[in-house]
Amino acid sequence: MNEQVEIYDQERIDDLMNAGLRLIQSDEVFSFSMDAVLLSRFASVPKNGRILDMCTGNGVIPILLSARTEGQIEGIEIQERLAEMARRSVRLNGLEDRILIRTGDLRELVQEVGANVYDAITVNPPYMPLQTGDQKLNPHQAMARHEVNGSLEEIIAAAMRLLRPGGKFYMVHKPQRLGEILSLLRQYKLEPKVLRFVHPKLTQEANMVLVEALRGGKPDIRLKPPLVVYEPDGQYTKELMEIYYGDNGGQA
Amino acid sequence: MNEQVEIYDQERIDDLMNAGLRLIQSDEVFSFSMDAVLLSRFASVPKNGRILDMCTGNGVIPILLSARTEGQIEGIEIQERLAEMARRSVRLNGLEDRILIRTGDLRELVQEVGANVYDAITVNPPYMPLQTGDQKLNPHQAMARHEVNGSLEEIIAAAMRLLRPGGKFYMVHKPQRLGEILSLLRQYKLEPKVLRFVHPKLTQEANMVLVEALRGGKPDIRLKPPLVVYEPDGQYTKELMEIYYGDNGGQA
Repeated sequence: MNEQVEIYDQERIDDLMNAGLRLIQSDEVFSFSMDAVLLSRFASVPKNGRILDMCTGNGVIPILLSARTEGQIEGIEIQERLAEMARRSVRLNGLEDRILIRTGDLRELVQEVGANVYDAITVNPPYMPLQTGDQKLNPHQAMARHEVNGSLEEIIAAAMRLLRPGGKFYMVHKPQRLGEILSLLRQYKLEPKVLRFVHPKLTQEANMVLVEALRGGKPDIRLKPPLVVYEPDGQYTKELMEIYYGDNGGQA
Repeated sequence: MNEQVEIYDQERIDDLMNAGLRLIQSDEVFSFSMDAVLLSRFASVPKNGRILDMCTGNGVIPILLSARTEGQIEGIEIQERLAEMARRSVRLNGLEDRILIRTGDLRELVQEVGANVYDAITVNPPYMPLQTGDQKLNPHQAMARHEVNGSLEEIIAAAMRLLRPGGKFYMVHKPQRLGEILSLLRQYKLEPKVLRFVHPKLTQEANMVLVEALRGGKPDIRLKPPLVVYEPDGQYTKELMEIYYGDNGGQA
């Protein structure tokens, strides 16, 4: 850990409860949620290779992935305020040699790094289309929740160009948009291969979907057992506890 | 019940455990499975109106639906041997005035009945594409399991033409093909609205998916709680028992 890292007003350092990792957060601009944690555990990232996290925000996914791979991890974030915060968290964890945070537009990244360069891409994108939902958010929050800087289609199109053939794409999103998600993935030759739905309780509708797609794969989906967050009494389920706090990090 | 109905060699009469309904079956040509029962309970068929069951086989779905609607129900089946068996089951239950079984090709039905005529369509189609799987079946079984007489796309295209705008489409299929299913439904303007996955056990991958689509609907999917068939000890779950044997018929 690097004690030289500066922490600004209204920021805090959270313990990620995982391999001693810590993260700089600020509710004013962005805080990670369960979605990012579940995605980072769902993704079967390669032990080595080059991994990209799109819409990386404060860098929570690259930092969590660093405990599960020896590979090189990059994050790209369009908001400099967040990218800069992510870079400080990388330094806080002494991960500068393994994680690179870029400030930039994911739609233009291929011009910088070239096509077919990543072995895996993760993304926890904004869930809501631009025209809908509560727009009365501050600009940081709006960009995290709405497709201000790239639609779902633009994200998927960019991932297709950036992934090598046989590379894997991992996304967390809302089941409400599953039709669009699967149609777009197939249109861009990212064949959906594994789906897992997250239900707050076993008797409730799913509110998240975890998706694995394979660039150039053949149609054949495995529909994993439901991931249930809470027991009927409101306690976390055993599986959720293992994912959050397990010594080795549970696999979502 | 009509005692005049003839039962042939190797046929049997099964009690559907539902409103006294019975069904003529023959393992030699076709027997219904849990898939058909779950679909008939999942489908929110209108109380009145005109309903079509495609690939109706021995008519199990129209006969089960007759307990849940006052509407007119039609079934279409390409194999005369099965359609004839279905017609005898209809007579066995005294349902001749409510259920009409046609022998014919669903791809040509629109020429007979016209477009936009049904309020709801159900289908438990063959699950396997023509080129794959075990082809060493007798012709009746092959047609029930493989897309011999119409691909998934042809079934969906026919449903789109036959359903009125706002009409509902209900299908049971394999999760393996979910990508194709959702892409094709959207391509033919049958927007997926409700999905429910069926897991043999809670900790196992899904082996069936129930789909509701709305002709001309807007994208917005509800992902219902998982439907689990067996408890860990191998007994049927409470929900499955209610669906099979419930007095009012549970809603899948």
